[in-house]
Amino acid sequence: MTSRDLPVAVDAMGGDRAPGEIVLGARQAAELGIPVVLVGPTDGSLGDVGDLEVIPAAEVIGMSEDAARAVRTKKDSSLVRAAEAVRDGRACAMVSAGNTGATMASALLRMGRLPGVSRPCIATPLPALGDAPTVLVDAGANSDCQPEWLVQFAQMGAAFYTERYGLERPKVAMLSIGEESSKGNILTKDTHALLTALAEPGSSNEKPAFDFVGNVEGRDLLAGGTHVIVTDGFTGNVALKSLEGALRVFMDILLQVFAETPENKVAGDVLLPSLLRRAEPLDPENTGGAMLLGLKGVCIISHGSSSARAIVNAVRAGHELASGDLSGKLAAAVGQ
Amino acid sequence: MTSRDLPVAVDAMGGDRAPGEIVLGARQAAELGIPVVLVGPTDGSLGDVGDLEVIPAAEVIGMSEDAARAVRTKKDSSLVRAAEAVRDGRACAMVSAGNTGATMASALLRMGRLPGVSRPCIATPLPALGDAPTVLVDAGANSDCQPEWLVQFAQMGAAFYTERYGLERPKVAMLSIGEESSKGNILTKDTHALLTALAEPGSSNEKPAFDFVGNVEGRDLLAGGTHVIVTDGFTGNVALKSLEGALRVFMDILLQVFAETPENKVAGDVLLPSLLRRAEPLDPENTGGAMLLGLKGVCIISHGSSSARAIVNAVRAGHELASGDLSGKLAAAVGQ
Repeated sequence: MTSRDLPVAVDAMGGDRAPGEIVLGARQAAELGIPVVLVGPTDGSLGDVGDLEVIPAAEVIGMSEDAARAVRTKKDSSLVRAAEAVRDGRACAMVSAGNTGATMASALLRMGRLPGVSRPCIATPLPALGDAPTVLVDAGANSDCQPEWLVQFAQMGAAFYTERYGLERPKVAMLSIGEESSKGNILTKDTHALLTALAEPGSSNEKPAFDFVGNVEGRDLLAGGTHVIVTDGFTGNVALKSLEGALRVFMDILLQVFAETPENKVAGDVLLPSLLRRAEPLDPENTGGAMLLGLKGVCIISHGSSSARAIVNAVRAGHELASGDLSGKLAAAVGQ
Repeated sequence: MTSRDLPVAVDAMGGDRAPGEIVLGARQAAELGIPVVLVGPTDGSLGDVGDLEVIPAAEVIGMSEDAARAVRTKKDSSLVRAAEAVRDGRACAMVSAGNTGATMASALLRMGRLPGVSRPCIATPLPALGDAPTVLVDAGANSDCQPEWLVQFAQMGAAFYTERYGLERPKVAMLSIGEESSKGNILTKDTHALLTALAEPGSSNEKPAFDFVGNVEGRDLLAGGTHVIVTDGFTGNVALKSLEGALRVFMDILLQVFAETPENKVAGDVLLPSLLRRAEPLDPENTGGAMLLGLKGVCIISHGSSSARAIVNAVRAGHELASGDLSGKLAAAVGQ
């Protein structure tokens, strides 16, 4: 059986809307012809699972539980069992909308790191408007980073981008506080030097499979034009949540304006179709979720608020990436 | 002459729209009864300065010049002369919409640091919608920080907040990647411990003049409820520019939607007044600009794109803060 025939293991108990929306999304993905297996309790609490197989897991890791302790103590949780299904060759990939820290810990402990990878990282597609998606890496796995790790994030992020979006030689930039190489903190300055050296013709390294285009700033995150933006997981997480917060504030203002008077309500109804169509790329439900890069297996981390539609997209992305041997390409990208 | 009678020194050559909008803003501030002096060339290139006095400065520091070198070599620049006017007691405060790095360097080198202050920092009012403004500190002065500096940013940020907005005991939070004290990087975890200890009854310190309310995340920056949010200057700058970028993207989408069809144009015209009124708090022109905290003098850093209106607000803020002896209160806040 090749990985294309293996199912994607979906953590039925992970996420704010689990198990209902998660099971629904898994069933919809299966109807589209993508092989899926659920992981969760078999006591009927998942509701109608249709024809889907369920890998039994009696425990649940809550959204706000301490990740390391939960994974250590809840060995029969849906998250841990989903990671084991990938490790044991019963599934080609796992998808969870649950506790992000526990998802990372389960995947890392059960699947293990790829050879040569210093630290796994999270690659998150940004809600960008440009022609091509922009992926932020690391979006939250590593709070304190070394420059060498960021170089690997760039290598793995580029390999992921090529596999996911079919673009050879993606443009990789580093998130900093000014375009000049002299702008930034110690980490970004040191990483900038390493990434620049990597691309030099006289370098002892093999030419990287991406173009390093220098620094970008926070205001460039949604501007498009750059394919992979590298940062440490602390900065990446703050930036991502800042964007989310700003978009939510703007949506709130708009809804308040629409509700203000009967005339506004009518005008809002006129604009809504155009608005929804143009704002669609900003919806995280459409991106297929974040990817944990650097493991011996594919792990998709979906947004905690994922609906069935988000789960369908995540399952599809997981299956495609596993079928394309993402892990092998990531290992090659870091030189192993 | 008390500092209330001293004029605010306005760098006439700083900013994307200098000197036109800057001079206009200075004149409008003077018409409102706030004492103002311009700093810039006296060869007529400032245009009509009305009754305003001009402190002569023949050189200009460009927006993208290297800050340290520019301040060292251009001793007769409008930025350096503005800082000297404050140092020499000819002005109570300085305002510049020019090169941010050079503004910081001029102010630091000419005015000097307050006793006890490890590092000056930038306090930037966020485009927030809540009842009370939220100030981010440090918004970009220090890229690599020690936990002790962040504690001082909290102390100075709170003292600034009380002076600027009249609120005793502002709520101070730290920007991190989760609400729990265990979430974050080494810097935020160490700072969290110091800020918590500072507030404890058995502490050897005097009780701080603020309440430390723990961590907030990027999505909370615009949510209101917190008065001062502390972070290092790298993270602060990335977060601030991420917010700016997101708001700009949303504005662009809205303008595209309005322009899409004649029906949309009519609907847009109906909504625009409500929209502008509700979005007004998001406009950085209204905040009075960012403040450099920790110097022997008041220095306001206006946005590079400042219009006359932004300059009026910055001049007013500078005059009020100097009249209220901000520097003395900042020195007291760090225990000197």
